[in-house]
Amino acid sequence: MSKLTIALDIMGGDHGPPVILSAAVKAIELHPDVHFLLCGDQAVISPAIQNLTASQRSRVTVSHCDQVVEMGEAPTSALRNKKRSSMRRVIEYVQSNEADACVSAGNTGALLTLSFYLLKTLSGIDRPALISMMPTASHHNVFLLDLGANVNCTPEILFQYGVMGSVLAQEAAGIPSPRVALLNVGEEDIKGNAYVKLADQLFKDAPGINYIGYVEGDDIFTDKADVVVTDGFTGNVALKSSEGLAKLVINEVKRQSQKNFYTRLMAKIAFPLLKSIYNSVNPDQYNGASLIGLRGIVIKSHGNASKDAFYYAIVQAMKEAKMRVPDKIKTKIETVLLEQL
Amino acid sequence: MSKLTIALDIMGGDHGPPVILSAAVKAIELHPDVHFLLCGDQAVISPAIQNLTASQRSRVTVSHCDQVVEMGEAPTSALRNKKRSSMRRVIEYVQSNEADACVSAGNTGALLTLSFYLLKTLSGIDRPALISMMPTASHHNVFLLDLGANVNCTPEILFQYGVMGSVLAQEAAGIPSPRVALLNVGEEDIKGNAYVKLADQLFKDAPGINYIGYVEGDDIFTDKADVVVTDGFTGNVALKSSEGLAKLVINEVKRQSQKNFYTRLMAKIAFPLLKSIYNSVNPDQYNGASLIGLRGIVIKSHGNASKDAFYYAIVQAMKEAKMRVPDKIKTKIETVLLEQL
Repeated sequence: MSKLTIALDIMGGDHGPPVILSAAVKAIELHPDVHFLLCGDQAVISPAIQNLTASQRSRVTVSHCDQVVEMGEAPTSALRNKKRSSMRRVIEYVQSNEADACVSAGNTGALLTLSFYLLKTLSGIDRPALISMMPTASHHNVFLLDLGANVNCTPEILFQYGVMGSVLAQEAAGIPSPRVALLNVGEEDIKGNAYVKLADQLFKDAPGINYIGYVEGDDIFTDKADVVVTDGFTGNVALKSSEGLAKLVINEVKRQSQKNFYTRLMAKIAFPLLKSIYNSVNPDQYNGASLIGLRGIVIKSHGNASKDAFYYAIVQAMKEAKMRVPDKIKTKIETVLLEQL
Repeated sequence: MSKLTIALDIMGGDHGPPVILSAAVKAIELHPDVHFLLCGDQAVISPAIQNLTASQRSRVTVSHCDQVVEMGEAPTSALRNKKRSSMRRVIEYVQSNEADACVSAGNTGALLTLSFYLLKTLSGIDRPALISMMPTASHHNVFLLDLGANVNCTPEILFQYGVMGSVLAQEAAGIPSPRVALLNVGEEDIKGNAYVKLADQLFKDAPGINYIGYVEGDDIFTDKADVVVTDGFTGNVALKSSEGLAKLVINEVKRQSQKNFYTRLMAKIAFPLLKSIYNSVNPDQYNGASLIGLRGIVIKSHGNASKDAFYYAIVQAMKEAKMRVPDKIKTKIETVLLEQL
């Protein structure tokens, strides 16, 4: 493949095709070296791309799909009954190497199941993980995984997650030797459950990983580590509870600002300040969780992603495709496993 | 006992006795019907209480302790080697019924171990839990447990936590029929690990509990539930990761405000607005985690509590003592267990 090809699931997401299509059009306009496979209802896609120039249009292929995986649909139903869905189609393009990566804002469980079934994990990896960036106090980003792909993690799986996270931090964020930490309820060696303690030992025995030990929940945001590893249950709760608090702050700013004439005036004067605070916690810019550990690149956008948020997810897909992240994970896991022999 | 007696560990906490003593003096001044047992180094306590009036002084007993449990000390060491410590002393006062409740800002692990060892759990309760209030969007509070007392929770323990949380929400927050929810990675029935699913069934079978099903991490802050139940590992991570994000926001406000002349001016003008945003997420007002499920009331203050934060923890202790929370938990758990027969 001389140029990148990204497959986009136009039908997924809470806001429907229009938001995703406008993000796709933005990506088509801003990335002249990338080809896009737009998968979904042709009748919806065609009008959205009619204003593209001839050269832009030449980089777009519309792949009509007459099925949609619904947001509340059971993953098994998506697997069995939605063989012509836009979600399945984008993954099939990755499977057949016609696309270098795919992006969907649809049903997370279905995307996980379809990706796992069609793409399979890399050798040495037992289970894929969902990984995403989070903000830190020093304006570096931290990668947190697993965000919910796998709620029951053995120590070996946690270890594999650390290796994968380390590769992604290195390739997608350019960190030379990413600091990998295990999420725990205290930093002392005696803390934690049995799985975490066993995973700690696996990391300590692995020379190829820059393992820094345990961190606690609040350390996710203090730039102590570049990669924070935990099971999918805890990671999902950490992600969502911090997002919940961010939303609480944003709503409180709105509520307090609207209280009376003086607060509205204050908010107007301090708007740039409030805006930059908002931006520091705005989850949009961290949109695009990668489903890693598979033989292909799958990016999961937030279901309620805005145009810009979905665009960030497309950019994340292009970045990982350019860096050939799955190949790098494969090489790294082989090296680490060989070193342990 | 005609009036309340609260035992305070003066020596615990990151800031040392002065902060805790000033909170104690505030409590002595504001609560004329409460007796205080101040446990710690007499030489440090005496000067701090010399300005009290004779009547205030008559409600204070100084209990000299020549040992201190250190913040980093192993719980087993505190149990074996610190039999004359201020932390152990306050719990012993509760054990002997000389105090109705105790408060410490010291080493959490040691406080858990000493309390468990000296007070024992109520009949029907396998393990104590740490529970605390968190803010919500509608300005009601939500109780979250377990915050780290017990990282390995069976479905039965999760169920007992729900019963205890329900009693605390009713007695300490005055909610008539508290909505109890289980923390999970999705709201659908198929989601979650085996323990959570089994606990869900236990709750569904218990008619005395207003169980509303699963909630996700972000729902902690949306006032969907009055009590959110999870294991100590996940609860600790949820608490600390949301605190971490709150700190990130507060630091970002400070950093952005100090950027240049205009932002400093903006921050000055919008100070009341920024202050009220800060207050909405300021963890101080939620200080005072209760260690529930024991035959006595033990309140754990944040180690780095300010004077006001420690004062809130004392108020929490008085509230639970007045409502006789352990008796209420005992009655409730007996009723629920009987109903299940």
